[in-house]
Amino acid sequence: MAKLRRFINISEDIFVIRNLIGAILQGVGLAYLVPVLLVWFYPDEIKLSVYFAIPGVACILLGYYLSRHIEQVEDVNLRQAMMASAFVWLFASFVSVVPFMAIAEMSFIDSYFETMSAWTGTGLTMMNHLESYPKILLFWRAWMQWLGGIGIVLVALTVLIRPGVAAARLYRAEARSERILPNFVNTAKIIVQIYTLLTILGVYLYYINGMNLFDAVIHSMTGLGTGGMSSHDLSIGYFHSLAIETITVFLMILGATNFTVHYRVFVNRSLKEFFRDIQVKAMLIFLVLIIPLMTFSLIRFGHVGPIRALRESIFHAVSAITCTGFGISDLSKYPEADKVLLSLLMVIGGSAGSTAGGIKLIRVALTFESLKWTIEQAILPKGAVIRKKVANYEFSEEEIQEVLGFTMTYFAFLLTGAMYMMLRLGAKFADALFESASAIGNVGLSVGITSPGLPPDVKIVLTLLMWIGRLEIFPTLVFLVGVAMMLPRRAEK
Amino acid sequence: MAKLRRFINISEDIFVIRNLIGAILQGVGLAYLVPVLLVWFYPDEIKLSVYFAIPGVACILLGYYLSRHIEQVEDVNLRQAMMASAFVWLFASFVSVVPFMAIAEMSFIDSYFETMSAWTGTGLTMMNHLESYPKILLFWRAWMQWLGGIGIVLVALTVLIRPGVAAARLYRAEARSERILPNFVNTAKIIVQIYTLLTILGVYLYYINGMNLFDAVIHSMTGLGTGGMSSHDLSIGYFHSLAIETITVFLMILGATNFTVHYRVFVNRSLKEFFRDIQVKAMLIFLVLIIPLMTFSLIRFGHVGPIRALRESIFHAVSAITCTGFGISDLSKYPEADKVLLSLLMVIGGSAGSTAGGIKLIRVALTFESLKWTIEQAILPKGAVIRKKVANYEFSEEEIQEVLGFTMTYFAFLLTGAMYMMLRLGAKFADALFESASAIGNVGLSVGITSPGLPPDVKIVLTLLMWIGRLEIFPTLVFLVGVAMMLPRRAEK
Ligand SMILES: [K+]
Ligand SMILES: [K+]
Repeated sequence: MAKLRRFINISEDIFVIRNLIGAILQGVGLAYLVPVLLVWFYPDEIKLSVYFAIPGVACILLGYYLSRHIEQVEDVNLRQAMMASAFVWLFASFVSVVPFMAIAEMSFIDSYFETMSAWTGTGLTMMNHLESYPKILLFWRAWMQWLGGIGIVLVALTVLIRPGVAAARLYRAEARSERILPNFVNTAKIIVQIYTLLTILGVYLYYINGMNLFDAVIHSMTGLGTGGMSSHDLSIGYFHSLAIETITVFLMILGATNFTVHYRVFVNRSLKEFFRDIQVKAMLIFLVLIIPLMTFSLIRFGHVGPIRALRESIFHAVSAITCTGFGISDLSKYPEADKVLLSLLMVIGGSAGSTAGGIKLIRVALTFESLKWTIEQAILPKGAVIRKKVANYEFSEEEIQEVLGFTMTYFAFLLTGAMYMMLRLGAKFADALFESASAIGNVGLSVGITSPGLPPDVKIVLTLLMWIGRLEIFPTLVFLVGVAMMLPRRAEK
Repeated sequence: MAKLRRFINISEDIFVIRNLIGAILQGVGLAYLVPVLLVWFYPDEIKLSVYFAIPGVACILLGYYLSRHIEQVEDVNLRQAMMASAFVWLFASFVSVVPFMAIAEMSFIDSYFETMSAWTGTGLTMMNHLESYPKILLFWRAWMQWLGGIGIVLVALTVLIRPGVAAARLYRAEARSERILPNFVNTAKIIVQIYTLLTILGVYLYYINGMNLFDAVIHSMTGLGTGGMSSHDLSIGYFHSLAIETITVFLMILGATNFTVHYRVFVNRSLKEFFRDIQVKAMLIFLVLIIPLMTFSLIRFGHVGPIRALRESIFHAVSAITCTGFGISDLSKYPEADKVLLSLLMVIGGSAGSTAGGIKLIRVALTFESLKWTIEQAILPKGAVIRKKVANYEFSEEEIQEVLGFTMTYFAFLLTGAMYMMLRLGAKFADALFESASAIGNVGLSVGITSPGLPPDVKIVLTLLMWIGRLEIFPTLVFLVGVAMMLPRRAEK
């Protein structure tokens, strides 16, 4: 630790990070103001709007104050970017709790759990009887999820895109595998447009298939944002509609696709770009492999009819691998094999560069390729060169090591979370692993462990898992090490 | 595949592998003759000795015939070494089934399961009511385990140590991380002497603490060889003796320690060498972390008294991490948290260069270090050099990649095995994972899935897991690819 401290200028760190946080805080403030517009549709909720307007204005003012020297920020190094990025999620969730505490009268821990779950696009919830809450509060959750999915990343990047700032490095903290595009600001604009367009398309499709407008907006936002927070306790299952389930599957897959693929599809006006993408292919392969096993187990051990079993398996498999978390039936009654297969999909996760969580498909694909290379190396004569290419991108040994190391670390946190729930609650392994995978993968599916009745320490563990998972672990560790280093030391020369 | 075939001279492969197999076959033949000596102690079993004498002589003659040109083998490449090594375990188990089929009248599948379990040092068994079998058969199992633990590796190395043969490469297939010592033949002799000496010490300690001589020999051989096959259905639990349990813990830890450490302890006459070893340290750290959690869970969810819970936790934790498989109580009644913690220890496994299985402690230590390096890299300024050293050995990026890749592949096989048992038998996840970890880690602990009543396909899956695990996966994959390439192709030019 002392060795590391020598390399670091702490006052510079604090300056850079404070300015970045200020910029983000202004974004959260603006986000707070949007639900206020809902009063136009639901005038009886007007008295609730103060719980959004006041924190919104406060965030904007505080953010403006903190970031008033942002033009002096000349370069952001990787450590600072990671620390800022880790802190942003902690802090944005912190300032977003007001409506939950004020309107729903939830405890601080429950409210913080809820906002962390919303901003990270997880969708686990401390709220029961969703239908009984004001529309403005349900919208606030879905709106955070929609923004959390793509907005926060893009806002941060747009703010940071200024001469001399190495934006790619912060982007690296969020989605390590995709190279930044040459002109990021323009690309970001187009991506936001695509995201908005697809959301509107989702609202339209839901609406013409029987949803009311409010539900259509909520589910299109949290479906495309792979957040999964619903306005109904039964989630998508509430609607009992194959059409609505199909639209949802479609939205979830779009949300879990790398947005540079969407960009290329739109710019080149060709759907080929979609199916050519290695991560899309990998997702489809995993679904094709796992869905039949899930269906088999559901028929044999869950005693569900074959058609219904297939329908549930497809929906929940897509919901799991895209890290959305919508459901159409009670997963706590599923056979253990189905729970484990869903956990596996949640651990794999969606595409890097999408709104989804998990280990990410590109890393899993690379791991499989890595095995192939090792076998080839043993079979080929010494000195034969194997090109370590995945999807036209040649990986260095160091990058491969990083990917595999990430995966191992992910497993370590996943298991630690599951073991905590087993020892604390006496939960079954399949259930504890499921819930841990759901939290760290920002998925939001539940077999019933997550509920308002949980002991506070378990709620905190789940909240930490959501935070660690959203940031792909390393930034949170760098953050913790960084904070430890910033603490003043006695007698250090 | 066609690309790979170009590099390979198949007739040379067959020549080399045939000669290696011949050499190994002579070793198995000699092994067969040893149980015959037991007739001196148990004269009423004299008629059973033919089932050992005849196959023994047959193996020696066939082995001599196959390896008659062994002096012409000039160099063994890595691929050939891996393939021979993978084939040896399949074949040695095949030729060892005679006594089980003839004396115990077991089916071929059950007998093959038993011999694979014995040679690989696993200890899962298809035999009930062990006390009812002839002594010579129980000795045969334990003797295979004792030899399988260290003998086969050393025999292969001794045979292969001749001018021009790259023995280190075959050794690499068995224990990748430890470099071969300068003068291997001498080292091998000393290691065999140490192994024998420790076994005799074990017999003596067991005997003076109340075991009869036969039991003392069996348990000392399968304890030090971390094989775990007992002469009693209740395993070590049969003796109800704290002293015997303590001796067993001691033997298991010795068996799961890198034998070059034993070599250094003996040569330098210093116990410091033992505690200085990184793998020994890692094993003790894992035990210190896991045993309290197991004890806690056993008291809280298993309703076992604190002293008894601690005693069982220590014994089973050591049995699991050393991959021995001895037990002192019925694990099928354990709480799921204890099953999962034991599975974790079985997956970690013992030291590379020992008789134990699992991922191996050196790989796990390297994985943890690798995480530390990644965080340091993010914190330090660009260009700062991090020395990737574990226990004074600096690892290259490529070696790190291989270790992490191995671990991922191990998990893939582990999960596939568990999922197979869940879908085929409707087993609980904790149980299926436990049994899969026990088979692939060559441990032999069971929560009751393994039994003579299993469907044949599940027996085959478990047999394959034992084989794959003993060879550390890659040689078996190279073997399968190699066999596929040796098949004659139509219309290939
Ligand atoms: K989600
Ligand atoms: K064993």
